[in-house]
Amino acid sequence: MPDETPYSRPVHEPAIRVMMMPRDTNAHGTIFGGVLLSYVDQAGAIAARKLGCARVVTVAMDSVEFKHPVFVGDVLSFYAEVTKIGRTSARIRITVVAERFEPPCENEPVTTAELVYVAIDEDRKAIPFAECRIQDAATAAAKKKK
Amino acid sequence: MPDETPYSRPVHEPAIRVMMMPRDTNAHGTIFGGVLLSYVDQAGAIAARKLGCARVVTVAMDSVEFKHPVFVGDVLSFYAEVTKIGRTSARIRITVVAERFEPPCENEPVTTAELVYVAIDEDRKAIPFAECRIQDAATAAAKKKK
Amino acid sequence: MPDETPYSRPVHEPAIRVMMMPRDTNAHGTIFGGVLLSYVDQAGAIAARKLGCARVVTVAMDSVEFKHPVFVGDVLSFYAEVTKIGRTSARIRITVVAERFEPPCENEPVTTAELVYVAIDEDRKAIPFAECRIQDAATAAAKKKK
Amino acid sequence: MPDETPYSRPVHEPAIRVMMMPRDTNAHGTIFGGVLLSYVDQAGAIAARKLGCARVVTVAMDSVEFKHPVFVGDVLSFYAEVTKIGRTSARIRITVVAERFEPPCENEPVTTAELVYVAIDEDRKAIPFAECRIQDAATAAAKKKK
Amino acid sequence: MPDETPYSRPVHEPAIRVMMMPRDTNAHGTIFGGVLLSYVDQAGAIAARKLGCARVVTVAMDSVEFKHPVFVGDVLSFYAEVTKIGRTSARIRITVVAERFEPPCENEPVTTAELVYVAIDEDRKAIPFAECRIQDAATAAAKKKK
Amino acid sequence: MPDETPYSRPVHEPAIRVMMMPRDTNAHGTIFGGVLLSYVDQAGAIAARKLGCARVVTVAMDSVEFKHPVFVGDVLSFYAEVTKIGRTSARIRITVVAERFEPPCENEPVTTAELVYVAIDEDRKAIPFAECRIQDAATAAAKKKK
Repeated sequence: MPDETPYSRPVHEPAIRVMMMPRDTNAHGTIFGGVLLSYVDQAGAIAARKLGCARVVTVAMDSVEFKHPVFVGDVLSFYAEVTKIGRTSARIRITVVAERFEPPCENEPVTTAELVYVAIDEDRKAIPFAECRIQDAATAAAKKKK
Repeated sequence: MPDETPYSRPVHEPAIRVMMMPRDTNAHGTIFGGVLLSYVDQAGAIAARKLGCARVVTVAMDSVEFKHPVFVGDVLSFYAEVTKIGRTSARIRITVVAERFEPPCENEPVTTAELVYVAIDEDRKAIPFAECRIQDAATAAAKKKK
Repeated sequence: MPDETPYSRPVHEPAIRVMMMPRDTNAHGTIFGGVLLSYVDQAGAIAARKLGCARVVTVAMDSVEFKHPVFVGDVLSFYAEVTKIGRTSARIRITVVAERFEPPCENEPVTTAELVYVAIDEDRKAIPFAECRIQDAATAAAKKKK
Repeated sequence: MPDETPYSRPVHEPAIRVMMMPRDTNAHGTIFGGVLLSYVDQAGAIAARKLGCARVVTVAMDSVEFKHPVFVGDVLSFYAEVTKIGRTSARIRITVVAERFEPPCENEPVTTAELVYVAIDEDRKAIPFAECRIQDAATAAAKKKK
Repeated sequence: MPDETPYSRPVHEPAIRVMMMPRDTNAHGTIFGGVLLSYVDQAGAIAARKLGCARVVTVAMDSVEFKHPVFVGDVLSFYAEVTKIGRTSARIRITVVAERFEPPCENEPVTTAELVYVAIDEDRKAIPFAECRIQDAATAAAKKKK
Repeated sequence: MPDETPYSRPVHEPAIRVMMMPRDTNAHGTIFGGVLLSYVDQAGAIAARKLGCARVVTVAMDSVEFKHPVFVGDVLSFYAEVTKIGRTSARIRITVVAERFEPPCENEPVTTAELVYVAIDEDRKAIPFAECRIQDAATAAAKKKK
């Protein structure tokens, strides 16, 4: 992605927020890392598609750090921040914060990750986000007229 | 719940936010109502436990209206509002808003519901939220000193 | 639904009967309410489609009462009773009875609910049940001749 | 099981009844055989524990025949019949009947199977059903007095 | 299947290998037999389709023996061996070996089963494996030329 | 992990091998990345615990590349290779190979990832693998005497 330009977007709300259930546990009784990674991937895709293309695919994930264990009853918020946006791809940072189950229900960052998404057309070929954004602006304009 | 007093709390963020997947569909290809109801129940429990008691149980649900179908790829936000709070129980209104999958990804309210939760102790007996809130205040005070 | 007329149908068998598994539990170790609500919705849909239309959607649910907790190993029976039937919609009462896991495996009503279903055509538009029942009678007659 | 004696029990109601959902399909779009076998195993266990022992384990399964494919929307009834009962084990025949989704919603037997269950104590050792039944009778007598 | 001829194929690798999770347990805390049977069915289908036909269906299963319980954390290997192959059907023996979770992580055979698969065409009609194998050989030849 | 020393282990068999089902798909109809990441995490944990400690946790994941899409019916093999082993942590490379569903069922590498696992004791504190391996050797010796 040599065409990346700096990009920043304030984050107010979580892309995903879920409560952890017993069915999400691993053999140690804590939450299975795969469950977290599944939501991390979804959260990134939600942020990526907000850039204007409904159809995006994950091409890479790195810098995943599992900082603290997650427990049944915790409510997890997946915050997504677009850190760089290129012509056809976007890099998104996910921060996962756990609100603990037991009062005082403190918040604690538990996992972070960075992912790269690519906008694709119906034939699964990469297309520029710019085209999507133009299309998006046109759609928004059309909506105002209604 | 004859001991209910009016209660209102501004809602800024969703209690739960999730993306709908193909495994959540019914025989018609739209999202199965049971999936929505599961998240509605969780969203209410999250709001109820914020009143100070980690351990709450759902005792009733009513006024559920399925206003619009939900589709694969939609991102659903479950907003919870505590509408009344009694001595041992709380009434919570859930509003489910779908952000549609296809651009322009418009938002649409799809389901509403009202639930009643009761705070319980370890023996599953109802206990006053007030006791929880006193305990909660004590915990908050203790936290400030740290 | 101002066009509702009284309707009653004897109930002999459950619309749904399932055994509760550990994957169905909530953070307290009892069965998650969302699991019950999912089966309640399915049970009502099964009863509604017996009125003659394969394609029905849930439009409302109310009067849900969670009377007793449900535990892993319990066998749940979801009994459905059509209480009123209108031109395009039907009201169905679900009674959930738990057969407890441990001998003497006593039966206990644990949850009740009422739901409204609407018959729809392929374009998701409401259609009269009467048309379905005429079609149903025709089908039954055709079957006898075989 | 050389200690088996003939046993028969009339079957009025299904041990399990469920509706098939899209998440239960295999790569061909029909219902995955493993889903059917899971319910078959549960249905047998439910019938076996009615003989008086809450704790039973499956030790064998045979004569499974998949006679017809099962489709999304079908309602499956799992009928269980105790065919032989020995000192510590019971043989149970499961018949699975599909009520088809599309009107006229005809019933069709789709799968049959035979399973052997053994009653076990807390240390996972086989114990005679007779002991369980004596215990069961005692429990029933105690219940009548209440 | 009167047209069966002896067939043997050395087994080097498992058809399926999975780790057991808490969501796979039954009411006794051990792994639910239905979970094992689901993977047994998949393992047989994988072996059957290696005979040359992508589309196979399970028509029978027998001789299933559950020899030892399986626990959370165990890694299960499902070994498949084609024991007989007829014109349109194949008989496959599955051996399930558990690598126990706790060191020394010993291996133990826990379940065995035999299944019969039939090759089908797009209309779900049985077709000879031979036709598939000819097609398979042709495909292999075509691949070498590339 | 400044205490890492080179480590290599030949890989003959997959740590995990599974068939992809319709319930594993995303909104585009291909396999959801989160499903792959869940198995990647399990595969690494299986390889890590073979170093002698039953109890390991994932602390990091990076270099995940999704090279090709995965489809329903594909059989995925997760190959794990321990690339470096430190005092309390191990780095493991996972290579995911898809055997395509449709004949000629060609193999294709679809995803790669690197993960770091830490051996922990019952209080979730890091412990040296060396201690585990000593314990493991002792266990192996004890087993030979039997």
